[in-house]
Amino acid sequence: MKINAEDIIRGDQLTGARLIRLLEEGDPAGIGVIKQLYSHTGQAFIMGITGPPGSGKSTLVNCIISEVRRRQLKIAVVAIDPSSPISGGALLGDRIRMRRHTEDDGVFIRSMATRGHLGGLTKTTRETVLVFDAMGYDIILIETVGVGQDEVEIAQFAHSTAVVSLPGMGDDIQAMKAGLLEIGDIFVVNKADIDGADEVVEQLRAMLDMASRTPGQWLAPVLKTVASKERGIVELVDAFWQHRTFLMDSGHFAEHSYNWEFQFFRHLVMEMAADRIFSDIEDSPARQQLLEDLKNRRIDPFSAAEHLIREFAPG
Amino acid sequence: MKINAEDIIRGDQLTGARLIRLLEEGDPAGIGVIKQLYSHTGQAFIMGITGPPGSGKSTLVNCIISEVRRRQLKIAVVAIDPSSPISGGALLGDRIRMRRHTEDDGVFIRSMATRGHLGGLTKTTRETVLVFDAMGYDIILIETVGVGQDEVEIAQFAHSTAVVSLPGMGDDIQAMKAGLLEIGDIFVVNKADIDGADEVVEQLRAMLDMASRTPGQWLAPVLKTVASKERGIVELVDAFWQHRTFLMDSGHFAEHSYNWEFQFFRHLVMEMAADRIFSDIEDSPARQQLLEDLKNRRIDPFSAAEHLIREFAPG
Repeated sequence: MKINAEDIIRGDQLTGARLIRLLEEGDPAGIGVIKQLYSHTGQAFIMGITGPPGSGKSTLVNCIISEVRRRQLKIAVVAIDPSSPISGGALLGDRIRMRRHTEDDGVFIRSMATRGHLGGLTKTTRETVLVFDAMGYDIILIETVGVGQDEVEIAQFAHSTAVVSLPGMGDDIQAMKAGLLEIGDIFVVNKADIDGADEVVEQLRAMLDMASRTPGQWLAPVLKTVASKERGIVELVDAFWQHRTFLMDSGHFAEHSYNWEFQFFRHLVMEMAADRIFSDIEDSPARQQLLEDLKNRRIDPFSAAEHLIREFAPG
Repeated sequence: MKINAEDIIRGDQLTGARLIRLLEEGDPAGIGVIKQLYSHTGQAFIMGITGPPGSGKSTLVNCIISEVRRRQLKIAVVAIDPSSPISGGALLGDRIRMRRHTEDDGVFIRSMATRGHLGGLTKTTRETVLVFDAMGYDIILIETVGVGQDEVEIAQFAHSTAVVSLPGMGDDIQAMKAGLLEIGDIFVVNKADIDGADEVVEQLRAMLDMASRTPGQWLAPVLKTVASKERGIVELVDAFWQHRTFLMDSGHFAEHSYNWEFQFFRHLVMEMAADRIFSDIEDSPARQQLLEDLKNRRIDPFSAAEHLIREFAPG
């Protein structure tokens, strides 16, 4: 069944879901549609929300959806689901979340399993964001678990990222903040009705104060929320919007978008080059021999790769 | 200062640390040394240990080191440190761990920050494993946080992976097990002196029983440990060794090693191809124009990438 780009542009969710599925499967037809859509993208505000398992991100996302809808904005969510790194899935979570917003045309939620080969998740997430963008969602919210390089990379897709922590987590989480400090535009201490919330807020503020900051730079706020009781959500959405205004006024918005696209482009080039190089190994006795030598440690992988690249593009 | 491959092969730790640093920095001289070392690799047993923050992995790793040393085996540890996804660091943890084993020549611990560009962590970890292998360590233990695609991918480097969970974690962690089930060869419930340990053991056993299993397949054991009291460590190391024997007897050991190396090779090819393609963009007005068009959304990234690849390798 052919996918009509027009149906995507007018925001049809069924067609959108079908296109995303095609893209996840790596179907070239999906890419064909993206090409047609591309000039319609670049409009959405991409928000990120990242935090460790157990920090209540999903509840927070649900609250953000409701608040954003109250403001008459359309929102699409990409949830990078760590629950199933290999087998895919995450359907249960999908269903639970969807139930609340399922009859609302202004909301589209998609859980992505972290399946697939190297860079697969990053690639599919980028493509999904493009589809949502073309569909006309004002906001695209990317939810990630906030540890691991891929997650950090995906968090960097966002124009504006909120880092969620919570009171009383172990040393591992406390230490994690040092790195997350650099990707956070907004800091959220969720479950702030638990003992120790103020201490975490203080710690975060102290760490942010220590970080070097040039004049005119964004000052990341530290907010308290209780997502389960829908507390602090208005302030959180306000903070996202203030950061958006800051980015727009400072010219960082356009710059960020271009960096994002260039990285996407570079990644595509890498993948296409590798596909091209490896697709004809079967037909070439010399390359078969190279693999055989590699297998028997007669050649090291670096020399073998250099050899292949030289052959592919001499000069 | 030139690095002598001979010094690596005889296991000199200072030279090893210097080589790893070169590789982390992407210095071509480091790769030159790896090429010389390569025929000396392929001997080590690569163990993985993965689990969420707070599961006590680091304490467990410390115990494993002591037990392995008691058995007169040399061990190197690669700790993939989630504490600093961008800024690097993890030095404090390094120092604390090193203190205990610092005067022991049979132990080498290296913490890797998850910094760097796409695939950077995966690449550096592979290279570090090769260095340790050439240095003659009997065991290379890779410690990862167990969420996120990169972590899963790195866990797959290991011949044998232990997945750590603990009693009473939130739903997120419970859900995570579904995915980790597939990468675990051994399951460990750490902090097993806390209430609820037996329930987690039961849950895991039930999940493992449900998973389809072909005859002759490895039956993953579920073990209880209390790392802080050094309980259950002998059994854990025994389980790793039993799995090693299973892999050796079934031919999976060699197969696994080759898959590992082929993925490494494929990744190198991708990186080299991209470097080659992008290195001369500055000099080419046509490519500059392509980037300009991309920036202004006059061309989509897919079409632009296809164009570049066609130009790079016509035919």
